[in-house]
Amino acid sequence: MLTKEGCLFRQKRLWDAVPSHVDWLLVADPRHVQYLVNFLVQPLSFSGGERALLLLEREQGATLLGDNFALRAGSSEHYADREVAETWYDHKHSVQNRDHVLFAALRHVAPRIRGMVGLLEAEWLPLGAIECLDRGTGTYVIARDDAPDAASDLGSVLRGLRRQKQPDEIALIRESVKAGEAGLARLREIVRPGISETEIYMEVQKAALSAIGRPGLVYGDFRATSPEKPKVGGLPTDHRLQDGELFILDYSVVLNGYRADFTNTLAVGKPSDGAKELFALCQAGMAAGEGVLKAGAKASDVHAAVASPYVAAGRQAAFTHHAGHGVGLAHPEPPILVPESTDVLVAGDVITLEPGAYIEGVAGMRIERNYLITESGADCLTRHEISLT
Amino acid sequence: MLTKEGCLFRQKRLWDAVPSHVDWLLVADPRHVQYLVNFLVQPLSFSGGERALLLLEREQGATLLGDNFALRAGSSEHYADREVAETWYDHKHSVQNRDHVLFAALRHVAPRIRGMVGLLEAEWLPLGAIECLDRGTGTYVIARDDAPDAASDLGSVLRGLRRQKQPDEIALIRESVKAGEAGLARLREIVRPGISETEIYMEVQKAALSAIGRPGLVYGDFRATSPEKPKVGGLPTDHRLQDGELFILDYSVVLNGYRADFTNTLAVGKPSDGAKELFALCQAGMAAGEGVLKAGAKASDVHAAVASPYVAAGRQAAFTHHAGHGVGLAHPEPPILVPESTDVLVAGDVITLEPGAYIEGVAGMRIERNYLITESGADCLTRHEISLT
Repeated sequence: MLTKEGCLFRQKRLWDAVPSHVDWLLVADPRHVQYLVNFLVQPLSFSGGERALLLLEREQGATLLGDNFALRAGSSEHYADREVAETWYDHKHSVQNRDHVLFAALRHVAPRIRGMVGLLEAEWLPLGAIECLDRGTGTYVIARDDAPDAASDLGSVLRGLRRQKQPDEIALIRESVKAGEAGLARLREIVRPGISETEIYMEVQKAALSAIGRPGLVYGDFRATSPEKPKVGGLPTDHRLQDGELFILDYSVVLNGYRADFTNTLAVGKPSDGAKELFALCQAGMAAGEGVLKAGAKASDVHAAVASPYVAAGRQAAFTHHAGHGVGLAHPEPPILVPESTDVLVAGDVITLEPGAYIEGVAGMRIERNYLITESGADCLTRHEISLT
Repeated sequence: MLTKEGCLFRQKRLWDAVPSHVDWLLVADPRHVQYLVNFLVQPLSFSGGERALLLLEREQGATLLGDNFALRAGSSEHYADREVAETWYDHKHSVQNRDHVLFAALRHVAPRIRGMVGLLEAEWLPLGAIECLDRGTGTYVIARDDAPDAASDLGSVLRGLRRQKQPDEIALIRESVKAGEAGLARLREIVRPGISETEIYMEVQKAALSAIGRPGLVYGDFRATSPEKPKVGGLPTDHRLQDGELFILDYSVVLNGYRADFTNTLAVGKPSDGAKELFALCQAGMAAGEGVLKAGAKASDVHAAVASPYVAAGRQAAFTHHAGHGVGLAHPEPPILVPESTDVLVAGDVITLEPGAYIEGVAGMRIERNYLITESGADCLTRHEISLT
């Protein structure tokens, strides 16, 4: 879970990033409520999919708003200074529209911010919330190319801040890595002709979550490629692995909203010479990318570095997707490591490098590691074994 | 997955329920987009947590709006008549705020509905969406006690319609039952002193999902009660089961947004006489409740029936929570089976009966089945064995 210290630091960064005349902020994206006070409705609960709102006041701190059940369904303890928990269900009476109960919680705090300048997170704040505030209370900006006041676009400000991960966020990503590494190790034990993609998913999920001792969301690519179909992805099917295929496990374990994202490809049976040649290119691409990672590097240059071994081998057509991307509360998120990216790496970015190779008639594969970008280079966060066999 | 026939039927019911002068509806609750066109961003994907919007037009049918990745991340094929998939990410360029891409998709269809009467689902439609529509386009109502026009409260109208499940919805709930029953059967094989709640979760999850051959969300109560602590609930901890405890498995497997919710309690070791006596009361309560289930029955009467054996035994203090509730795209949802409920069962309701008993110094336990309410009675959907040992 995030720490109180980390949440307070992120709140301070947010206040520093918005205009100084703003007195309050109403945050609505569930990811941003988590980011700022460590409250996220546990998706593995009967309140999964419900929401809380977060009111931040310069002078009064953080107030979490929600219904009485949603506020009890957090993934872990939150650090808001206070709660407004409106009763939705009391085990005695019928229930009303649960969303309206959320609005009622907002109505409780509306008088406190009347007449003060506020920013609304318009990307996620429901339209119905507005009638709970006084008409004219709160302003919002949706960034457009011609936006005159980007600092008032609360959603985009938060997305920008999210890039520079704090130690508590890194710790959660490391826990996700630990889970993911256990799943990849399990794959190595079970991959063989005859096992189905779905069976692999079930085994990998159990190994990954058992390694950290708690439930979490497990998603990603759990698919076998063949020379005829080198490009496949997504959740597993009932396909049974065949000799000569390659199994790509490119996946994430989401814990308190945060996730790593890393990959290995394993041969089913003996890999072909063509597959081995492409795998070596992927490894060379990753090594070349690692060589240029540091704060200040252009994302487009990182892509070029990863692509360079493919180009040198005349194999650039085999590698057409991104060289990597940021990851954290979303996937992908900036920086995006692509040829025309305008992003520049910053210290605190957590990124992937994920060279792949897909040639019809030969093979489809991908490998991937995660890195924490530093001023002087990068710390590799993922230590799983990368090899075809 | 839901069927096209079912989705079209639900769309027709919705049009019948809103005022006749309304030309279009903008649906934003992810559950309702799923309900109407079978589109839900797969929570087990890297787009988990993202959204689509649904525009329904009386003359033009259904248009699904979203970014190019979210619209490719549906849990299964959708039945909208068309898509507006705005490019968020192309593997060549940096990405902009993903939420703004959703708004851009809405901007594409705004000219088509200009000047026509529409309803907005204000509970979930983000405030920022409004500036994509012409000012003054679309109306919304949040139901209050004094609401003059409840038929225009789109969110509440949809919540009302959701009670009467259609065959495709029942089929999904039955698939969830199949998964859940497999997990309960697995529990029977593994429950013993020394195993941890988390280990049970991992085994149950694997068995449940393996039984249906696809990933899904598994949540619920995976907890051991003791005479000292008869009331515990929620996700598993690292507690290791001890002789004399009872393990309550009250859980759900969510598939395409739909879930069943059913329970058994198993003794760890030999159950005490006190536990057996309370378990018999739970069973009597369930039988009594089953006896009054049918369309037209008052929810409060169902509660009274379930409670009657407890009252007769002078044990009413042991049973203080609801006797059951509706379940489907949410949990709980109406009807709510509690003493002061004003709900009345309707044909198509899927409900739980879940008598429990919690007495400090004796034991804590709960059992639960699911039922489809019919005009003449109820079909029991869950056939798992209910017994303490």
